[in-house]
Amino acid sequence: MKLLRVGTSGAERPALLDAEGVLRDLSGVVPDIDGALLADEAALGRIRTAAEAGELPVLDADGLRVGPPVARIGKVVCIGLNYHDHAKETGAEPPAEPVIFFKAADTVVGPYDTVLVPRGSVKTDWEVELAVVIGRTARYLGSHEEALAHVAGYAVAHDVSEREFQIERGGTWDKGKNCETFNPLGPWLVTADEVPDPQGLGLKLWVNGELRQDGSTSDQIFSVAEVVRYVSQFMTLYPGDVINTGTPAGVALGMPEPKPFLRAGDVVQLEIEGLGRQRQEFKPA
Amino acid sequence: MKLLRVGTSGAERPALLDAEGVLRDLSGVVPDIDGALLADEAALGRIRTAAEAGELPVLDADGLRVGPPVARIGKVVCIGLNYHDHAKETGAEPPAEPVIFFKAADTVVGPYDTVLVPRGSVKTDWEVELAVVIGRTARYLGSHEEALAHVAGYAVAHDVSEREFQIERGGTWDKGKNCETFNPLGPWLVTADEVPDPQGLGLKLWVNGELRQDGSTSDQIFSVAEVVRYVSQFMTLYPGDVINTGTPAGVALGMPEPKPFLRAGDVVQLEIEGLGRQRQEFKPA
Repeated sequence: MKLLRVGTSGAERPALLDAEGVLRDLSGVVPDIDGALLADEAALGRIRTAAEAGELPVLDADGLRVGPPVARIGKVVCIGLNYHDHAKETGAEPPAEPVIFFKAADTVVGPYDTVLVPRGSVKTDWEVELAVVIGRTARYLGSHEEALAHVAGYAVAHDVSEREFQIERGGTWDKGKNCETFNPLGPWLVTADEVPDPQGLGLKLWVNGELRQDGSTSDQIFSVAEVVRYVSQFMTLYPGDVINTGTPAGVALGMPEPKPFLRAGDVVQLEIEGLGRQRQEFKPA
Repeated sequence: MKLLRVGTSGAERPALLDAEGVLRDLSGVVPDIDGALLADEAALGRIRTAAEAGELPVLDADGLRVGPPVARIGKVVCIGLNYHDHAKETGAEPPAEPVIFFKAADTVVGPYDTVLVPRGSVKTDWEVELAVVIGRTARYLGSHEEALAHVAGYAVAHDVSEREFQIERGGTWDKGKNCETFNPLGPWLVTADEVPDPQGLGLKLWVNGELRQDGSTSDQIFSVAEVVRYVSQFMTLYPGDVINTGTPAGVALGMPEPKPFLRAGDVVQLEIEGLGRQRQEFKPA
């Protein structure tokens, strides 16, 4: 299923994009799409039954904003340097074990919302990423099979990054990863049953129409299953938590000088095979 | 005012500790203590009026668990190496600007709750910290005065840390800061009007009765006002967000070998002048 949330920010209603690409209202079946729903197999079953029976009202998609596909996200765990080609372009050795950093859940916005270039920023950068949404509480998972059983679904994430803040201002990467609006998510949460192989997805990103990233999750150093298993050894993952699993090559940071960092007015589009496409216009904060 | 939340985990009710040290029920005045309340001056005024009028029912404190004093915390921003004496003991240069890392809000527990030593941990460490709770949305603050006007109050925080995970396992410090139960908070939120000088507070921490940390916020490299102003340049702070402002000297990491890291069975107590005392027993995860 493709689950999404539509409406003005903070007042989104749950919806479903059906097999014909028609937007359907879920607000008569479930109150919202959040961790509680994703952990509730009976509620997910009700959605599936209503969809198959053709009982869901059609929603007029015209002019309707799309919000992030998950409400009340607890935390956004991010994996750094997780593609062979991206580690290479940044001059870093492939990490021996997953690199973890954080984005605050309040950085998450809808897939077509405006992204703000922070004040004073000269190194705002793009990163298309496969986001994993957790469906069951996960601690000390023992195997890859068990890890995948804790995944509710997948979505496109844009891990917007300010490289000066991230690398040149002291401390951890978090300083350049948490500016407001820095994590567009969506348009949909595709449930895990419809993504049989998360290691075979193409990822693409364009800046002002020019293709900048063109990778595949097959190039991930640590697979989705390994990332979920590994992270669960260091922290507990809860339903509705998100893991951004890293970005392939092609970011501004990896390019020759003058690096084409983002400025107000730029338009970024990104997509992952089967998970939909985002589009953001960048504006000054 | 000293605001707190009492009851079983997830079902706490709001309470007030009055000037005589008597626990008073706030659930007839406000639904909970969270970011929405802290941003609502009228609601805070109602609590104050009811307290002064002696209208708040007494709560029987016997056997009542104390939870974290703030519900629905959005994010916990942490400042690293923010005391001259602690930077020195770890062998680090005092940072040129604040070091930022994150704890997930789901690591926050009550001040007397059990803390879990992670599986496989051999370097679990303690850190007493002054926590700042945000009361108004803060972005790009221009001055220290403005920064302090965005602070709702202060509390004791225990920034429990796993040093192997933090330093020796690759990536950022976040890997050793986000284990479950790693952020006891409370017992109270003391409103900012009752803490006229956040730079003059003594902090102490004992392990199994032995005094290990004995510092003062006067030794902070970056003051509370500067930390709030600085962080607001990189991310938006929302009501109910927490900033852990760093720890003074005396952590296990800074001691000679064999360093006395925490093990199951250890008991840690910590206090900050005027903000109360915590006590945690450590158990295996």
